[in-house]
Amino acid sequence: MHSFPKSEIVMMLVSMALMLGLGKVVGELFRRFSMPAVVGEITAGIILGPTLLGRISPDAYTWLFSSGSKSVMAIESFVLFGVTLLLLVAGMELDFSAILRQGKSITVISSFNIIIPFVAGFLLARTFPGLFGIPEGKIIPALYIGVALSITALPVITKILMDIKLFQTDFGIMVMASALVNDLAGWIIFSIIIQLFESGTVDALRVLKTILLTTTLVFFILTIVRQFINRAIPWIQAKTEWPGGIITFIVTTGLFFSALTEAIGVHAILGAFLCGIAIGDSPYLKKHTREIINQFIGNIFAPLFFVAIGIRVDFVQNFNPALFFTIIPIAISSKVAASMVGSILSGMTVKESLPIGFAMSTHGAMEIILGMIGRNYGIINNEVFVVIVIMSISTSLASAPLIRIFIKGEAELLIQELLERKLFIPNLKSIHAEGVIKELSLKASLATGIQSDYLGKMVLAREAIMSTGIGCGVAVPHARIYGLQKPLIAVGISQHGVDFNSPDGKHAHLVFLILTPEKDVNSQVLILSQISNIFLDEQIRNESINAASFNEFIAVIKKAVFEKTKLS
Amino acid sequence: MHSFPKSEIVMMLVSMALMLGLGKVVGELFRRFSMPAVVGEITAGIILGPTLLGRISPDAYTWLFSSGSKSVMAIESFVLFGVTLLLLVAGMELDFSAILRQGKSITVISSFNIIIPFVAGFLLARTFPGLFGIPEGKIIPALYIGVALSITALPVITKILMDIKLFQTDFGIMVMASALVNDLAGWIIFSIIIQLFESGTVDALRVLKTILLTTTLVFFILTIVRQFINRAIPWIQAKTEWPGGIITFIVTTGLFFSALTEAIGVHAILGAFLCGIAIGDSPYLKKHTREIINQFIGNIFAPLFFVAIGIRVDFVQNFNPALFFTIIPIAISSKVAASMVGSILSGMTVKESLPIGFAMSTHGAMEIILGMIGRNYGIINNEVFVVIVIMSISTSLASAPLIRIFIKGEAELLIQELLERKLFIPNLKSIHAEGVIKELSLKASLATGIQSDYLGKMVLAREAIMSTGIGCGVAVPHARIYGLQKPLIAVGISQHGVDFNSPDGKHAHLVFLILTPEKDVNSQVLILSQISNIFLDEQIRNESINAASFNEFIAVIKKAVFEKTKLS
Repeated sequence: MHSFPKSEIVMMLVSMALMLGLGKVVGELFRRFSMPAVVGEITAGIILGPTLLGRISPDAYTWLFSSGSKSVMAIESFVLFGVTLLLLVAGMELDFSAILRQGKSITVISSFNIIIPFVAGFLLARTFPGLFGIPEGKIIPALYIGVALSITALPVITKILMDIKLFQTDFGIMVMASALVNDLAGWIIFSIIIQLFESGTVDALRVLKTILLTTTLVFFILTIVRQFINRAIPWIQAKTEWPGGIITFIVTTGLFFSALTEAIGVHAILGAFLCGIAIGDSPYLKKHTREIINQFIGNIFAPLFFVAIGIRVDFVQNFNPALFFTIIPIAISSKVAASMVGSILSGMTVKESLPIGFAMSTHGAMEIILGMIGRNYGIINNEVFVVIVIMSISTSLASAPLIRIFIKGEAELLIQELLERKLFIPNLKSIHAEGVIKELSLKASLATGIQSDYLGKMVLAREAIMSTGIGCGVAVPHARIYGLQKPLIAVGISQHGVDFNSPDGKHAHLVFLILTPEKDVNSQVLILSQISNIFLDEQIRNESINAASFNEFIAVIKKAVFEKTKLS
Repeated sequence: MHSFPKSEIVMMLVSMALMLGLGKVVGELFRRFSMPAVVGEITAGIILGPTLLGRISPDAYTWLFSSGSKSVMAIESFVLFGVTLLLLVAGMELDFSAILRQGKSITVISSFNIIIPFVAGFLLARTFPGLFGIPEGKIIPALYIGVALSITALPVITKILMDIKLFQTDFGIMVMASALVNDLAGWIIFSIIIQLFESGTVDALRVLKTILLTTTLVFFILTIVRQFINRAIPWIQAKTEWPGGIITFIVTTGLFFSALTEAIGVHAILGAFLCGIAIGDSPYLKKHTREIINQFIGNIFAPLFFVAIGIRVDFVQNFNPALFFTIIPIAISSKVAASMVGSILSGMTVKESLPIGFAMSTHGAMEIILGMIGRNYGIINNEVFVVIVIMSISTSLASAPLIRIFIKGEAELLIQELLERKLFIPNLKSIHAEGVIKELSLKASLATGIQSDYLGKMVLAREAIMSTGIGCGVAVPHARIYGLQKPLIAVGISQHGVDFNSPDGKHAHLVFLILTPEKDVNSQVLILSQISNIFLDEQIRNESINAASFNEFIAVIKKAVFEKTKLS
């Protein structure tokens, strides 16, 4: 602290608060429109950076982020630390055992997925070196472009496979494993390129030496170190304060291997990534520990990193349309082609293989990290960097809609997304089941335009067959409604309690009116099972009943859903 | 990243890994001997700093921590960020509503606890300015010493009150509330002193202006901002991704108020602390969110801060015995006297009030932060700083044993601390209850020296009265044993299952042989209730049965205990 003058402290705190705060706000806005939060965070950086703030108010921009000041140095060190931790977490998420299990079957697909885009990128950069700002005769920047095109976005692929309900199938596991190998190989090749770039010369001996060093390191960490960590984890969990000991162990080990790899000449980031794989692979690691680390890194260090992207580069000035329109088609088509070849060789039809190609063609957060490192080393210029960031964003955004054209997947039905303020009654007036159903039907009617009497009649008809009090103070009157477009839940809280003829004899304090489209046979059951699952928990029931507003109510539900998912 | 040369990256990663790793290892060692982990972390800093490493290998010390290098700058910014977050968390832990509820009743005690040590410290420094390195006629450093003596260690007091089972009593709550007011007032006074020091002059107008500004700020944050945050939290929890949104909100708000208070001239740390109080006071804040923040800050930023303490100052060279033997007795006696006066005024006897005096005389982590800031501002020199650190450590260590002289509290009995490797059988051979009891008795006999036959006989005699299979695959044969010094649990896992005549008819896979001293009437019931509470959970049962080693087994139990405590 003593080397920070007062004004620098204010500046550092203000700029970090701004980066974090705006990053989260814009991130959430983007998430609201079903876009990844990371795109919002980069946008927040563009707003705070030279692109926007720097144009509108150069003084404010300089005051906040003028390079060379101590507060900017501080932020830079946070970003550096953050990248190391991000790669550590990325490694921890990667299921190395799955790769080992799949063995040979994935080698084909993943090889195509690395080689074809790599060659395409390399040839593209060799053919138009001027476009990429590559000096005459330099081979390494072209190799770098090859790697940039060959890396995929594992989290994006995971999400897509889940959305189209292929995640748990043999095919889904194979695609995931291919993507894993792809990422791992990509980082290794990248690391070799960085070493060659730093050494300045590219002769056969040097290349061989670098490859040997890197593969030895990879082998060492993924075998001996992995075994060692796997044995150390239960020991640490047993011997030290829980979960503090294991959290510190993970972060310390990550930092140590980053430092080690950097010291022997391989980039720090590969060390963190490999160490993350070794740690994440241990079956002894508890979900709870992963969550604390993920949450903190995901919500503090990751946003800082992605906001910092936009702060450093002017995205308007450095946008080169020629470069953009050259690289994007090649990037997508080479990935799609590679995946299709691989998929067809595995026995799929062309039509089936196409969506997989779109999935594999996504470039995400890892690609942006790779771009950042390439730019910092001076392998690529700002124009190429900007195109890499835009490519990562646009492929991530485009792939899901493209896949939906070919595979009609059902979106998952989640009750927390069906609950709405306008369908919420914090204080039911009626103390009889019929009156409560009428109150809720009125709300539903206002939201849908369907006559309230009709809704009430349908629900009461169902109620006449068998009462819908499910016990523990919860009732779920429901009906399938002709003309309804999508499922709807109206919720009412009754402090008095309403007799819904429950098996346990208890009056209902939480009443969920569930209306589903007549032709939709699944939603009703799905919603009912989710509600009964969530409200089995007494604490959640009490918290929901005592919720004074819709915001409180939905917060309780979200937390409950989160806890349930965590345990499953 | 681009302003970090390669060697600096290695240095930063290595030094951070070392600080974190060694801090944790030494911290755990200290914890093993029932000392606070923070003392171990400071010791780790002393090992890595000029005191030890700097003497043994000046080159290594300079390479790692040479001031002015970018990696040290990076660590400094982490420490600065860490202190802000530490104060934020400290504020979050402080129960402001409790203070409001207690109202006037605590005013007396806390006033004495602030005023008497403050006056004592001030007069001491005025009488011996040379000893404190205070220039002739300077009044502010003397005021600072007053504040340093008046601050208490809230977490230490909490722990002591829990240990002596007074925490939930009216008296415990009153002591806690007094300590809270004490801390709050201490930081406010400190903040005023810092402002006066910075302005350079101490005239009445200036003092008045500073006090006015600070109290306005305190009032503003603890009323308007607190209300606003209390309303914002459920809204954020409802509207944003959970728990990411709320975590970012807390950290961002903390940084923002630190920056704001620093900008208007009040120290950043007061802003973070007050903001923490305002956030922590909201009933909407979930335990889960607090835990993620506490764990990450407590295990990453706090150790970095406390290790950094030792790295900056030579604790041998700057140790001034005269200063030490002057300040420590005054510090303890003024606090004890103040607490005794307060306690006696509240109707206690002298003998009862003495242990409370010892509790209130502890200085802890907050005191060290205060010392660090005072040193960085140049208000105190390294000698005073070293004495403040030693005072914080020694009072924290000494108070519990001193209190135990007066109050014979029972140490809490925790099953995870009774389980031992030498009392663990991962694979019971016998498939009958009697045989299993013999196997476990043999282990118990080896550990205690009491004849195995005798142990087995006593347990079987108890078993004959009523079988100890408690269902769900758990059995708890037990007996009170003459000549046994302390409770003992021997555990065996049976894959086959053993018939312990359970009410649910299921065979036992987990057998706990519980032996307690004959005269100890409580331990048996305590242990039995803990075991049945933990193993109600099916997941925990399955994980324990499948544990392949003692380490795995104890890790499962620790996690289970942690989860149970978290939920209660």
